[in-house]
Amino acid sequence: MDKKKDARQDQKSEIREYHTPSSGFFFKIKKNLHSKKSNYQNIELIENETFGKILLLDGLVQTTDRDEFCYHEMMAHPACVVHPSPVDILIIGGGDGGILREALKYAIRNVHLVEIDAEVIAVSKQYFPWMKEILKDNRVTLVINDGVNFVKNTSLKFDVVFIDSSEPVGPSAVLHEKLFYELLKKRLQPEGIIVAQVASPFFHSEFIEQKMTFFRELFRFSSLYLGPVPTYPGGCWCYAFLSDLVHPFDIKRDPPPGLRYYNPDIHKAAFALPNDLIF
Amino acid sequence: MDKKKDARQDQKSEIREYHTPSSGFFFKIKKNLHSKKSNYQNIELIENETFGKILLLDGLVQTTDRDEFCYHEMMAHPACVVHPSPVDILIIGGGDGGILREALKYAIRNVHLVEIDAEVIAVSKQYFPWMKEILKDNRVTLVINDGVNFVKNTSLKFDVVFIDSSEPVGPSAVLHEKLFYELLKKRLQPEGIIVAQVASPFFHSEFIEQKMTFFRELFRFSSLYLGPVPTYPGGCWCYAFLSDLVHPFDIKRDPPPGLRYYNPDIHKAAFALPNDLIF
Repeated sequence: MDKKKDARQDQKSEIREYHTPSSGFFFKIKKNLHSKKSNYQNIELIENETFGKILLLDGLVQTTDRDEFCYHEMMAHPACVVHPSPVDILIIGGGDGGILREALKYAIRNVHLVEIDAEVIAVSKQYFPWMKEILKDNRVTLVINDGVNFVKNTSLKFDVVFIDSSEPVGPSAVLHEKLFYELLKKRLQPEGIIVAQVASPFFHSEFIEQKMTFFRELFRFSSLYLGPVPTYPGGCWCYAFLSDLVHPFDIKRDPPPGLRYYNPDIHKAAFALPNDLIF
Repeated sequence: MDKKKDARQDQKSEIREYHTPSSGFFFKIKKNLHSKKSNYQNIELIENETFGKILLLDGLVQTTDRDEFCYHEMMAHPACVVHPSPVDILIIGGGDGGILREALKYAIRNVHLVEIDAEVIAVSKQYFPWMKEILKDNRVTLVINDGVNFVKNTSLKFDVVFIDSSEPVGPSAVLHEKLFYELLKKRLQPEGIIVAQVASPFFHSEFIEQKMTFFRELFRFSSLYLGPVPTYPGGCWCYAFLSDLVHPFDIKRDPPPGLRYYNPDIHKAAFALPNDLIF
């Protein structure tokens, strides 16, 4: 009995993310804020002394108070500064609202956030301070729907599309497939840009190579770029910039003030790839 | 009794590095290869399924088979490709031999490796395959000595100096101080370059800012640069490039073939700093 109790307390005292079966992160739990299985995934939110609030989906860290700017700035700004006129934006996934917050800093006309899991929105609204503000912005249309369904059935066209999927397991798996990008391309304006989170360059370089193969079949400009995200596996993340007409280096406007990671020097630098990632 | 035994077994089944009191890495232990306190520090070497051999000093990961190239290439190559003629090299610390291995790929005349702890050399020689080869190279002089003592007492001058210290606690603390860099500068040729590992840009930006203050007082070109190291805290590491005459972008030669991380694009990109690190 005592042992069982100890084991339960141990489980509750920290959370682990396994990056491989033999390694990963641990985060001590200061407070358990939320732990519930939705129709799609296990949603956990904890408070940690170092990282503040940490949102995990199926045990994988998505967003933390302390380092979310690294990921969200690198998702949002590269495309927003190079598109000639980004007015209609689509975000698929991204229920924590981080990319939405960044995109709204530009003079856009409207942005659709298509999140499959209403529970992710609800939890983020409760715990991430930016969510309440941005969901009141009248440029925002919140759609609770499967990303593939939305893309199949909408007649809208977009200037910039962000694929803020979780890992290629669970509800996000289909968002990593070629078929989805073929459908998505039909919803892009001619000068449209897609930015997608891809994977860890350190742990998943083969997966990245596979994706690049079909990205190149579909888009004239298919470039990978990198940026650090301390709480993602390997500490560095890989993004894809996809467009038929817009070159990723052709910067047309300043980023908004007040960013913590992204700037024009970082923009260009992010596209420099280590030898191991040059396919 | 049972509980105690369980606790001991738990300790042995994995190793943890705390990056903050509430977060860090865990690595499952496949095999304990070495665990011994030297005169200076606790030296551990474990085998892990993902990372291969992991060397820890006082509980902090120094080198792993899987990702050591990230750190060692970014320490060695930026200075070696921009120096007009790097022939006399000094490495302070670096007992695992990674920087030494990279520096020997250039047409250098000699390299002094000054490591305070003979045990680190012995363990590395036993477990890191490159060590046996490079210590046989007749351009290498191995010195078991305190880095400060060596720098104070030598009459030699160097073209490139690498400070491969461990953290600013324990035997390496003094290697992070201004006084040490003042002494070191006297041992630099006029076109000399110092490259030093500094800290995690994510966890230790205040420490980096302090160091930059005295680097700028001492050297005309004082630049920080960044590169990922998956097994270091935050997954990204900060290095300093210090010189009075050589600009860090003035590349004069190709890097050696066969590198996995470093290339000329990465060289320039590494000096682009996120807003949070521009002091």
